[in-house]
Amino acid sequence: MPRERNVHTFIGCDSTYEESQLVIYGAPFDSTTSFRPGTRFASAAMRNESFGIETFSPYQELDLEDFAVFDAGDLELPFGSPARALEQLEQEAESILSDGKIPLMIGGEHLVTLAPVRAAAKRYKDLCIIHFDAHADLRENYLGEELSHASVIRRCHDILGDGRIFQFGIRSGERAEFAFAASHTTMNRFNLNGLDEAIRVIGDRPVYFTLDLDVLDPSEFPGTGTPEAGGVRFTELLDAIIRVSRTNIIGLDINELSPHYDQSGASTALACKLLRETILAVLNNRKKAN
Amino acid sequence: MPRERNVHTFIGCDSTYEESQLVIYGAPFDSTTSFRPGTRFASAAMRNESFGIETFSPYQELDLEDFAVFDAGDLELPFGSPARALEQLEQEAESILSDGKIPLMIGGEHLVTLAPVRAAAKRYKDLCIIHFDAHADLRENYLGEELSHASVIRRCHDILGDGRIFQFGIRSGERAEFAFAASHTTMNRFNLNGLDEAIRVIGDRPVYFTLDLDVLDPSEFPGTGTPEAGGVRFTELLDAIIRVSRTNIIGLDINELSPHYDQSGASTALACKLLRETILAVLNNRKKAN
Amino acid sequence: MPRERNVHTFIGCDSTYEESQLVIYGAPFDSTTSFRPGTRFASAAMRNESFGIETFSPYQELDLEDFAVFDAGDLELPFGSPARALEQLEQEAESILSDGKIPLMIGGEHLVTLAPVRAAAKRYKDLCIIHFDAHADLRENYLGEELSHASVIRRCHDILGDGRIFQFGIRSGERAEFAFAASHTTMNRFNLNGLDEAIRVIGDRPVYFTLDLDVLDPSEFPGTGTPEAGGVRFTELLDAIIRVSRTNIIGLDINELSPHYDQSGASTALACKLLRETILAVLNNRKKAN
Amino acid sequence: MPRERNVHTFIGCDSTYEESQLVIYGAPFDSTTSFRPGTRFASAAMRNESFGIETFSPYQELDLEDFAVFDAGDLELPFGSPARALEQLEQEAESILSDGKIPLMIGGEHLVTLAPVRAAAKRYKDLCIIHFDAHADLRENYLGEELSHASVIRRCHDILGDGRIFQFGIRSGERAEFAFAASHTTMNRFNLNGLDEAIRVIGDRPVYFTLDLDVLDPSEFPGTGTPEAGGVRFTELLDAIIRVSRTNIIGLDINELSPHYDQSGASTALACKLLRETILAVLNNRKKAN
Amino acid sequence: MPRERNVHTFIGCDSTYEESQLVIYGAPFDSTTSFRPGTRFASAAMRNESFGIETFSPYQELDLEDFAVFDAGDLELPFGSPARALEQLEQEAESILSDGKIPLMIGGEHLVTLAPVRAAAKRYKDLCIIHFDAHADLRENYLGEELSHASVIRRCHDILGDGRIFQFGIRSGERAEFAFAASHTTMNRFNLNGLDEAIRVIGDRPVYFTLDLDVLDPSEFPGTGTPEAGGVRFTELLDAIIRVSRTNIIGLDINELSPHYDQSGASTALACKLLRETILAVLNNRKKAN
Amino acid sequence: MPRERNVHTFIGCDSTYEESQLVIYGAPFDSTTSFRPGTRFASAAMRNESFGIETFSPYQELDLEDFAVFDAGDLELPFGSPARALEQLEQEAESILSDGKIPLMIGGEHLVTLAPVRAAAKRYKDLCIIHFDAHADLRENYLGEELSHASVIRRCHDILGDGRIFQFGIRSGERAEFAFAASHTTMNRFNLNGLDEAIRVIGDRPVYFTLDLDVLDPSEFPGTGTPEAGGVRFTELLDAIIRVSRTNIIGLDINELSPHYDQSGASTALACKLLRETILAVLNNRKKAN
Repeated sequence: MPRERNVHTFIGCDSTYEESQLVIYGAPFDSTTSFRPGTRFASAAMRNESFGIETFSPYQELDLEDFAVFDAGDLELPFGSPARALEQLEQEAESILSDGKIPLMIGGEHLVTLAPVRAAAKRYKDLCIIHFDAHADLRENYLGEELSHASVIRRCHDILGDGRIFQFGIRSGERAEFAFAASHTTMNRFNLNGLDEAIRVIGDRPVYFTLDLDVLDPSEFPGTGTPEAGGVRFTELLDAIIRVSRTNIIGLDINELSPHYDQSGASTALACKLLRETILAVLNNRKKAN
Repeated sequence: MPRERNVHTFIGCDSTYEESQLVIYGAPFDSTTSFRPGTRFASAAMRNESFGIETFSPYQELDLEDFAVFDAGDLELPFGSPARALEQLEQEAESILSDGKIPLMIGGEHLVTLAPVRAAAKRYKDLCIIHFDAHADLRENYLGEELSHASVIRRCHDILGDGRIFQFGIRSGERAEFAFAASHTTMNRFNLNGLDEAIRVIGDRPVYFTLDLDVLDPSEFPGTGTPEAGGVRFTELLDAIIRVSRTNIIGLDINELSPHYDQSGASTALACKLLRETILAVLNNRKKAN
Repeated sequence: MPRERNVHTFIGCDSTYEESQLVIYGAPFDSTTSFRPGTRFASAAMRNESFGIETFSPYQELDLEDFAVFDAGDLELPFGSPARALEQLEQEAESILSDGKIPLMIGGEHLVTLAPVRAAAKRYKDLCIIHFDAHADLRENYLGEELSHASVIRRCHDILGDGRIFQFGIRSGERAEFAFAASHTTMNRFNLNGLDEAIRVIGDRPVYFTLDLDVLDPSEFPGTGTPEAGGVRFTELLDAIIRVSRTNIIGLDINELSPHYDQSGASTALACKLLRETILAVLNNRKKAN
Repeated sequence: MPRERNVHTFIGCDSTYEESQLVIYGAPFDSTTSFRPGTRFASAAMRNESFGIETFSPYQELDLEDFAVFDAGDLELPFGSPARALEQLEQEAESILSDGKIPLMIGGEHLVTLAPVRAAAKRYKDLCIIHFDAHADLRENYLGEELSHASVIRRCHDILGDGRIFQFGIRSGERAEFAFAASHTTMNRFNLNGLDEAIRVIGDRPVYFTLDLDVLDPSEFPGTGTPEAGGVRFTELLDAIIRVSRTNIIGLDINELSPHYDQSGASTALACKLLRETILAVLNNRKKAN
Repeated sequence: MPRERNVHTFIGCDSTYEESQLVIYGAPFDSTTSFRPGTRFASAAMRNESFGIETFSPYQELDLEDFAVFDAGDLELPFGSPARALEQLEQEAESILSDGKIPLMIGGEHLVTLAPVRAAAKRYKDLCIIHFDAHADLRENYLGEELSHASVIRRCHDILGDGRIFQFGIRSGERAEFAFAASHTTMNRFNLNGLDEAIRVIGDRPVYFTLDLDVLDPSEFPGTGTPEAGGVRFTELLDAIIRVSRTNIIGLDINELSPHYDQSGASTALACKLLRETILAVLNNRKKAN
Repeated sequence: MPRERNVHTFIGCDSTYEESQLVIYGAPFDSTTSFRPGTRFASAAMRNESFGIETFSPYQELDLEDFAVFDAGDLELPFGSPARALEQLEQEAESILSDGKIPLMIGGEHLVTLAPVRAAAKRYKDLCIIHFDAHADLRENYLGEELSHASVIRRCHDILGDGRIFQFGIRSGERAEFAFAASHTTMNRFNLNGLDEAIRVIGDRPVYFTLDLDVLDPSEFPGTGTPEAGGVRFTELLDAIIRVSRTNIIGLDINELSPHYDQSGASTALACKLLRETILAVLNNRKKAN
């Protein structure tokens, strides 16, 4: 009997690449984090801790065992070099997109989102972004650096232009960022209100969904670098994700878990549960669409 | 003047055994915990930390100093031997029940609940269970073991049969567990709705109340081994416990606090406060009944 | 070019003393804390962590950069000597008040509030206190000591007498404290209801506002010595503070953050955000008044 | 069968007061600690964790089960009032001394040592002190306070005068403290050299032995408020304690464990082991003397 | 280009089973741990953290990249059932031994050692054990249980009998365990002296080497459940392991790392470094032997 | 009386820039750290915690109060951009050097050392480097990046060439790094032996001294990103630093403290103590030279 090596995946995501509709990969990178680093540890922590949850969702009555997902592991990224790290991540997203699969990236700091957005924007001319976050991430630069977690949505706007970015839950930023949003993005402060209207406006255009987990209230998700009081609740977020999943999602990410800042493990467990629910919602919707 | 030795009880629970109506004992056991152990430390931590709360409840306008409770300390249980640990715990419950007192066990992992349920079921033919939990605990076995925290309510069902178990707050389990519940228990998912109806159905039958503290939202109670997002709030739970206390409670437990996973101490403090409120509600109700 | 030394202030509070309307100072003292000490670290932690938030408030559309605030640093207080520490703190408050500025003290344990209240009561005959807290702090003494965190509002009452103290959010205390409150203070248990009525009753009398951060739910604010479940939410508190700020506030404090008890940093971050919002609300209101 | 209440002692120290030669009591007090508080938690932590060690010493081939020790628990001391706390502690020491037993106090901050020294000095005219510590503790006062952890040996010198205090391991202090020591105490810097000479000089005079655990290297004992690199090793200290135990010890203490600062538990475990060895050495020596 | 799944091994141990001379497997089991559990997390933590060290040893001038090692991952063991867990572990050891390879097990609590010893004793009639540990592990039983971490070497003695077990570093146990050792094992207390003599006595008999990492001083290795002061140093241990590796080692284990108790990660890093050195020493010696 | 703002310096380092001989500045940068980030927090933590030590050294009988040192605070460096961060740091070093003062940089990751070395090499043609570290830091690049903490001494060698770099305590690296050292640097593995010979060889050439604190044993200094067992002791290191201080030091740094990884605070306290001793030794030596 041949012996297999020790495979390390998110729970229930052990299909082959070929048979999978969705591919998970980790982006353990946090070099531009200006306050408290640590999101590099998120993807490994989520794989480890995912075995504390079940594959079955009592919310959606769906089970990961009924869907095919491949977990590609983490890319080995050069700390200290945002430009090169983004290149590698863009290549990974392109490769998955070109195989007709959905890339799901686990960050890492939010800057990593720029990579799959670049890849997706090349392929989809009318790409929209749905962005859940506590922070606007619309700075022109941060201490002179244009490739910064605090500027990532601004960089996405450089590519996509006005009317294509929909932001929710924002409750922190410089005055200038809120001014920028007033003219160039659709921003909903503090909560997820207005999501249904955004979904209606987006229609069947392709959607990249980026979920900065610090949109959650720090009481439910303290495990992040810059916790901002006054966030949304897990049940609100879960409900919103299920609604977002009914759009034409072609790529997505979940980022800014910094597991060491919540030694109870509750933040990592919540991230795992959200990841399960997100995968189930997206794939179930795609199944219904086909 | 004779010197007494250093007595260690939960705050305000320093009556003698003879004069007490309710007896607390600890079950520091977590050998079958499959994910993250540590509930063995709960009862000692709760005694220590109980001195950070008061004996008076501004919610119920009642004071522990007006009731007689004996704290028997912890049993010394053999780690690694669930069967023998359960025997010792069953004996303790039987002894207290046979003296006409209410046993209140502080777990430990949830498996320990099987012991007082066995003792109570022998004595009360029509025993019902009210079960608050995030997890269904209805597996037939766990990696082949029938005596597991993940199977404890299934084992209770082996004894009591259909129509006697009322579950609330459940939001995690295998698909098969939810299927089992559909036929064999009364299960309310996610929240405590339906409790009043359950209380009505139970009527004046004897009730064993088992409170797995992870029914709470991890934001309020991160100090547990398998935190499940989307739980109930302290104030909801407190209100529900007071309603449960109006049934004919003959035994109860509070379990799954794992104090080291919440270094803020807030989880232990919350457990202490709930224990105070539970004792006050149960004894006040019994007083009114007499 | 002359070199300046390393100046350490709360974010955006770097004006000179002379030009400022409001003066921050720290009271790193916790010698009478009976349960878990650590509030001595609050003011330094808040200065450090304040650089994780922005100077701009999207809630009030105001920016700290538009107001003049001086951060005087911490007083060096003698641990173990409550009487002498209070003298030093009273002197600091008097000095600021006599310059026509608003003193804003960062505690420390709640006992420190007695110092600015003494200073303010000398200057303002009809001084009122608005008190947000989980604990009544109305004990006559604590183990014989009259200068205790658990007695601080009682000591304020010694000075001000009946009808001048308005308490909100109280959910812990001895039976005797609640009895005292019934006759001598205006107390609202559990939440912030009744605040508008209190503000109406107070009218334009001078107000000292003391905010014990443990009025918050421990899920949002675990970083405190005696966390009490069942507290108010950040958004409720923020809303209430803005309403309080419309009274004639002549001094205020924010206390009982114990930063080490929340290793996620979320409690400290929340305290920083509340401090920003409080300063903005108070100074914006004063600006409108002038 | 009558039920006993839950007794909480250091392992193997469960004899009655009457039959015991040595009495343990805790002094959970740290109000004057100027840097990082937490020694108040030491005595309770040591009782809890003592069950992780054995009663038998393979170093001395002695077993706690062969000696009679009473553990009186902790005194309830008024935080914030050093003078009153010291009075209570002095009374406890006097009571034990007057019954012909050896008081062994578990601190707490080092200031508590002043209480049993006062009691012992009244009873023994030629009392000497053997003092192991990283810090000189010889300040005239600390921020004006004479009753401070940093002044405790200076206060002892006020009582005993020159030539009676023998200090070892000292590696931190103001210049003035080292100057004071040069004239008034016998101080050995950095290590425990010179102990045998001190023991010879002391002869059969009565000895109070005060062990500040921070004399240990922080690598072995990080659980203390002001860790000072360059300390002594456990095995050196154990050896020295056994030699000290051959003097005429009439009282002793072990202080400055701050258990929360070492989350590994190794510091508390080491303190427990040292306490076991110290008790065995002192009582074995007394047995041989009789 | 086919995509491979995410493989998770100890650094440099990524050969196939067939080509390997040594096989690593994890035994994540700690159900009988009586004091503080957590060794179940050791093998996963060591794989994760091994990427913080290098494959090259400057001590031995050897590199893991020059040797073939297979990492089989962890067995899924039933918590709460020591007997069944041991069966599974014995089967794993037997399978590896029967393929002519060296099994290297990562515990887990020390009880797991019994499994490979059973397997090895069947195959090698004159098997000897070299045992490094702080604790004697020679109890007849623990609270009635014969399968306990505190009894594991006693159980090994049941199989092997007198004169075959060589114990080093022992500094904790009941009086009865030291008495048993005096008659039945070769025990060296406190340090590793006598190792060369033991190696000489053992000669070319087959050796099972079991390394309980708590033999190390807690200053260097705090990450374990029952830290015992007064242990050996890393450099002494490394030197001893290299000497042990020159015997005829047919199986070995490294156990009792409890990674969560040392949040600095130093204990896990040390365990990784020792594992690297041990593998290099054992395989280099075997290479020279062939 | 004018009010000064809250100044934040290392203890006893509060002179003006003009009067100072030595200037401290912080380099809070860790973007290229490949394993565990956090050294960005070192300089602030050291300033905070320095008030737990004294200004007086009983080792050297010197007091910081007798020397003039300016603490310039931290530079605000762009995370994610090593090249630009190094430029800013080089400018700072140049400015201090050109004023005839000694720059003392507090890292940060070790890469920051390259900046003052560049500045010093421009000014001093025959510059030598004394390097204490656990890691060789001699990689040609790390994942393609030449500006990496793992390559910093290699980059220094690019500037200085052979025979100018003296490395001590090295116990980790790739095989290729040790091979490089054999030809191009003077490397002493594992300990500080050979230091006196190196000092002799260096003679009166100008010396840049770079101290990576992980040269210490992790038992004494766990607060670092990649702890390597088998390091040197505090007392050995202190002794060596005093000897190094007798060379012609023209600049120096102390780096790789990651304070959050040692929650006891002992690592930060040790770093503070070493910094005090280093300043005293360097300035005392310069005083004697003049």
